Amino acid sequence: MTELSAREQELKAILADIKPTDKTYVEKARQHTASLILPHRALGLLHDMAEKVAAIQENLTPNVSKKAIYVMAGDHGVVRSGVSAYPQEVTGAMVMSFLNGQAGISVLSRHAGAEIFVADVGIIPDVDAKGLQNAHRLTIKKIARGTNDMSQGPAMTRAQAVEAVMTGYELAAAVLEQGFNVLGTGDMGIGNTTPSAAMGVVFTGQPATQMTGPGTGLNPEGVARKAALIESSINLNKPDKSDPLDVLAKVGGFEIGAIAGSILAAGRYKRAIMVDGFISTAGALLAHALCPHITDYMFAAHQSEEGGHKYMWQHLGLKPILSLGMRLGEGTGGALVMQVLEGAVKVFNEMATFEEANVPNK
Amino acid sequence: MTELSAREQELKAILADIKPTDKTYVEKARQHTASLILPHRALGLLHDMAEKVAAIQENLTPNVSKKAIYVMAGDHGVVRSGVSAYPQEVTGAMVMSFLNGQAGISVLSRHAGAEIFVADVGIIPDVDAKGLQNAHRLTIKKIARGTNDMSQGPAMTRAQAVEAVMTGYELAAAVLEQGFNVLGTGDMGIGNTTPSAAMGVVFTGQPATQMTGPGTGLNPEGVARKAALIESSINLNKPDKSDPLDVLAKVGGFEIGAIAGSILAAGRYKRAIMVDGFISTAGALLAHALCPHITDYMFAAHQSEEGGHKYMWQHLGLKPILSLGMRLGEGTGGALVMQVLEGAVKVFNEMATFEEANVPNK
Repeated sequence: MTELSAREQELKAILADIKPTDKTYVEKARQHTASLILPHRALGLLHDMAEKVAAIQENLTPNVSKKAIYVMAGDHGVVRSGVSAYPQEVTGAMVMSFLNGQAGISVLSRHAGAEIFVADVGIIPDVDAKGLQNAHRLTIKKIARGTNDMSQGPAMTRAQAVEAVMTGYELAAAVLEQGFNVLGTGDMGIGNTTPSAAMGVVFTGQPATQMTGPGTGLNPEGVARKAALIESSINLNKPDKSDPLDVLAKVGGFEIGAIAGSILAAGRYKRAIMVDGFISTAGALLAHALCPHITDYMFAAHQSEEGGHKYMWQHLGLKPILSLGMRLGEGTGGALVMQVLEGAVKVFNEMATFEEANVPNK
Repeated sequence: MTELSAREQELKAILADIKPTDKTYVEKARQHTASLILPHRALGLLHDMAEKVAAIQENLTPNVSKKAIYVMAGDHGVVRSGVSAYPQEVTGAMVMSFLNGQAGISVLSRHAGAEIFVADVGIIPDVDAKGLQNAHRLTIKKIARGTNDMSQGPAMTRAQAVEAVMTGYELAAAVLEQGFNVLGTGDMGIGNTTPSAAMGVVFTGQPATQMTGPGTGLNPEGVARKAALIESSINLNKPDKSDPLDVLAKVGGFEIGAIAGSILAAGRYKRAIMVDGFISTAGALLAHALCPHITDYMFAAHQSEEGGHKYMWQHLGLKPILSLGMRLGEGTGGALVMQVLEGAVKVFNEMATFEEANVPNK
């Protein structure tokens, strides 16, 4: 193997610094749950969620009240091959709407009490955020103005792939250093279900036909064409599954790399990471390929309507928390589930024990 | 048929006054959803939820920000036949913990921003609420000190059944008149999965073995004994499915009747009603048997782990929103889902349209 670039060495050092969580905290947390005034584990998944946070934070009074969502935006060369129902200009327009508080994720992050951050890690236009309500929430860190068309060759260079992951890492790390104790992933990029599905095919081993869905609204013929294009792009570029950055470079996207970086940052800073929909989970597959125990820090927010999503969760060994027929992305599912997670942690912290409340036990 | 009591005539008049919702609001609301800056209905069930609220409230800017949860508590004679893993004293102790802010529903209603109300509609002890933080939230309206053992004869008289429903109606109506725009059901009563399952058997036609689960924690032998007892109680009392109040009287419970009444109040006042777990859904079956279009106002908060719950939702034609392996009752599932409902309504109200945000459409 050739010598690593300085930037890739940096990433390697970060990966080495992400530790599995200490499972003795799960055991101690389960004992606390068993003492609370309810039948044994009668709040089901809520208990598991709180106990996982206790292990992540190494704290038996965990806290997820300071919530942030980081939306990574990028454009995709493969859109030129007709894989999306919407024109590419929508990417930039939607970034504007995030900053203006008018998009789905704007509404749902506000509702969840989560602060929203947006990064342009490679969209084509320059967004003019002046005068928008959340203009200060936008960071411009373009890797390039959109990826190349993966159906014609690699989506990006290896150096760009490393830079995408490191950019996501650094942006998220800066937010986590402000004290946020839970981070949600989010994405924007017209066409990005195509590279996400391609990465899903490579990492999970599922065929393209299983992994490909309608995205923002292709008809069945469009979905079949998209699956065929994903298959031929993989055959052309031959991504090396054992080298995750090669997979990102060959068939990925800038925002997907940045999402993976933001997930790694959560692991490095011992914070809970709420992974949202299909594109975010492609980022999670990449983060997991780079650092398998990163799933110790992950919550699977929801099961998207996009067909291949379930195979991604299966590969990661995570059970999605909600299943509401959503397929928007942006981080919307994660925002909703942050409230459930916060409820779970409050149950853990605020309920009385049988002894405290003088309630007879079984 | 014998002449109706004055109280039953009152109930009959209320039932006649509950109207189906105006579905033209759903159509208008769907048009609005289609104009929002997201792929067609990409937030799935959230759109359906908001549109249902628009029809309930006959308002295209619906509002579910003022949230209340009403927990109805009662005791059950059938506990003497050994159907619960917990002693009957727990009912009163848990009512105390609700008022002290320490129970699961206390924590989750606080988290949801929902005000909690508690009624003793027939528990055995007198709760001494003096000094408890939410003492003023408790209303004492005992129908009796616990029901009779349904395995020996009817659980209550017809007059008591009518009174249970009317009490729940009047208590909830008083709360709704304070301006709450969404109400959650809740229950407390050691042993109450047994009458709930019995009512489920009668109303849905499922066999007792399908409808019966472990409740707060019976072992498999206990569950089998409970199912047999439910079957023999039904055979003994012969509840008349075509006369819903007879079913409540023969094999029901005071809090289940009161929950049905609270659901009917939501319909009468055109408010959304969030139906929680197994016991609440037994109340919903009764409300539905009395007034089939009451489901126009209902949301199915979640799928409980209690086995028969899914048959109840199927019978009501409602799809549960969450499935988190919960089986606590108290209204806890409803409290969690109220936040999802509020998010859904905010998406409907606060997102920009393609035109407003100048985002290119397909």
